[in-house]
Amino acid sequence: MDMNEKALKLHEEWKGKLSTEAKAHVNTREDLALAYTPGVAEPCRKIAEDKELAYKYTMKQNTIAVVSDGSAVLGLGNIGPEAAMPVMEGKAVLFKEFGGVNAVPICLDTQDTDEIVKAVTWLAPSYGGINLEDISAPRCFEIERRLKETLKIPVFHDDQHGTAIVVLSAIINALKITGKKKEECRIAVNGSGAAGIAITKLLLSYGFKDVILCDRSGVISKSRNEASLNWIKKEMLEVTNPRDVSGNLADAMKGADIFIGVSAPDSVTQDMVRSMNKDAIIFAMANPIPEIMPDKAKEAGARIVGTGRSDFPNQINNVVAFPGIFKGALEGRAEQITEEMKLAAAETIASLVSDEELNEDFIMPEAFDPRVADAVAEAVKKHI
Amino acid sequence: MDMNEKALKLHEEWKGKLSTEAKAHVNTREDLALAYTPGVAEPCRKIAEDKELAYKYTMKQNTIAVVSDGSAVLGLGNIGPEAAMPVMEGKAVLFKEFGGVNAVPICLDTQDTDEIVKAVTWLAPSYGGINLEDISAPRCFEIERRLKETLKIPVFHDDQHGTAIVVLSAIINALKITGKKKEECRIAVNGSGAAGIAITKLLLSYGFKDVILCDRSGVISKSRNEASLNWIKKEMLEVTNPRDVSGNLADAMKGADIFIGVSAPDSVTQDMVRSMNKDAIIFAMANPIPEIMPDKAKEAGARIVGTGRSDFPNQINNVVAFPGIFKGALEGRAEQITEEMKLAAAETIASLVSDEELNEDFIMPEAFDPRVADAVAEAVKKHI
Repeated sequence: MDMNEKALKLHEEWKGKLSTEAKAHVNTREDLALAYTPGVAEPCRKIAEDKELAYKYTMKQNTIAVVSDGSAVLGLGNIGPEAAMPVMEGKAVLFKEFGGVNAVPICLDTQDTDEIVKAVTWLAPSYGGINLEDISAPRCFEIERRLKETLKIPVFHDDQHGTAIVVLSAIINALKITGKKKEECRIAVNGSGAAGIAITKLLLSYGFKDVILCDRSGVISKSRNEASLNWIKKEMLEVTNPRDVSGNLADAMKGADIFIGVSAPDSVTQDMVRSMNKDAIIFAMANPIPEIMPDKAKEAGARIVGTGRSDFPNQINNVVAFPGIFKGALEGRAEQITEEMKLAAAETIASLVSDEELNEDFIMPEAFDPRVADAVAEAVKKHI
Repeated sequence: MDMNEKALKLHEEWKGKLSTEAKAHVNTREDLALAYTPGVAEPCRKIAEDKELAYKYTMKQNTIAVVSDGSAVLGLGNIGPEAAMPVMEGKAVLFKEFGGVNAVPICLDTQDTDEIVKAVTWLAPSYGGINLEDISAPRCFEIERRLKETLKIPVFHDDQHGTAIVVLSAIINALKITGKKKEECRIAVNGSGAAGIAITKLLLSYGFKDVILCDRSGVISKSRNEASLNWIKKEMLEVTNPRDVSGNLADAMKGADIFIGVSAPDSVTQDMVRSMNKDAIIFAMANPIPEIMPDKAKEAGARIVGTGRSDFPNQINNVVAFPGIFKGALEGRAEQITEEMKLAAAETIASLVSDEELNEDFIMPEAFDPRVADAVAEAVKKHI
């Protein structure tokens, strides 16, 4: 049985990968009177007097909503809310298994930006945080920005920030091995969707100076036809590409120290890798088929290669970030996930690989490393 | 420690009465690859081809949303979404503990009818059913009607229909004891909110002919000032009060066989009970203090008395209805909860009290009777 058949069969057997379970069990009349009427009226009254007490008396303290509109699901594209559910259930499972955070999957039957903002705003009171997921760019940027402006609970688009955090972690450790300095590194990012934009922003926050962003039409540069750039790409042009490189991905990669792909399979050739600076670092994260396979990249001279896949060394996997991020945000009652928290999370994840362990084929902690979520949570809490 | 203090302390200790739990555990790389990427893409693809398969591969098959706007919570009134959460969590616990149904509490930060309809419509794809809860009348009637018209999953306002079902169950058994015939019974209902309206409608569906509905201003009759009747009360006037009684509750109760109170504490006097027909049946369900205390009602001549309380005989408790209703609706993939299902559920609940057990002080099955949810579920499924 191949992977797809096996996954399908298991999904049928699981009858849903997630369940809701009672923590307050109701076996006697007294149980019923305490967990439900009339006893339940007392916490209701207290919260009515002071909304903050919802964190003390309800599941809001340790529960987030995982919200998608099904518009950009994995590599499958716009498959709609029903078809997005297996992913959101899976994500909710990971939040619980890795971070101990309760998560409720909510797939919305609208892809209108205003309506998504309204929907999330209306359902927010029950939850301690909102994890946005698989919402297509550039809508995802506006949706997240507007929700962050109005909600008093953390809002986090994992496709953006989770990815950006783990990529920065990988880069921090790759720089240790290669001895490259962030101020001097040239970086080419291929892919200007949610992940590519967020990675670029976080790299700039961390102190990288020379990042070139590419989309399907090539380098985002001043020479590009304005009509080919949406508002976020225009914004990014202001802060990227300081040498005003123009052309295609091959032009962007010439002399680069680091390539980051969140784009399309097989979009990078060995010649492009050969054109990079020495000790080139390649993170080819297109899934399931990377921009260039690790063996080919190495053969062409790359020193460190990472992918999104678990069957090659250096898997760059969001799962080392998002469970700890929300665990920390909820425990510390953060109202926002700030830039400082993301940077601290990335440094913490990188630090979990000891100097003794660190080598070209081991730059990231394992997804199942039990220290990760707690360490990330503590890093987040330090910056609240 | 009194009940309120104890409930408050427990709510703090529980840290949320409900949790989400993984059914698909993720302990190895292979687990991760099957429950999440890349394996999860296969059920996504299948559902994208045929939305119905969401019932096969996701938690939609056995999960409902418990949705409130916090506008009419218990006897506490309009306390808002945060303060409504302890009740919705409790309700979700009862769905799971009694019916094995997963339930997600969602308290909405809007009390606008159009917005609530939109919110529920947008979040519906993830769930197999919607249980509306503690939404004030008459908005609840319009919200439920509009959602039933557009959604293809069952929508059920428990304050209306759950209450109506259990009251009808109690009446069915009370008639067995008293020998009264439904066609000849006179019924006075006090309270014209969600419960009072729904009870009256279900009693008429069942075959009662003479029901008088009262609100705070007295009998809903042709002589009432039109401005004092909202649209639903005007609608109810068309089908109730066939003898055109006017006046106050005391007038409605004169010669009545059955009194049903879903109204205010102490609103019924012993004189009113004395004015009823012989073998009077009283269901005084105001919570926590009934319209008249059972001992006083009995002293004034009532033969059968029920309340909402567990510390008196004949507790009329929705918990014998709603878990089984949704268990049956989900298992049978009902698109609606129909009038036939409600009537069948009421008859089934009544039938669980055997002829040997049935007496003035035992007309309803116990809330903890393990047969109840399955029996109700089967009754619902027979009418899909």
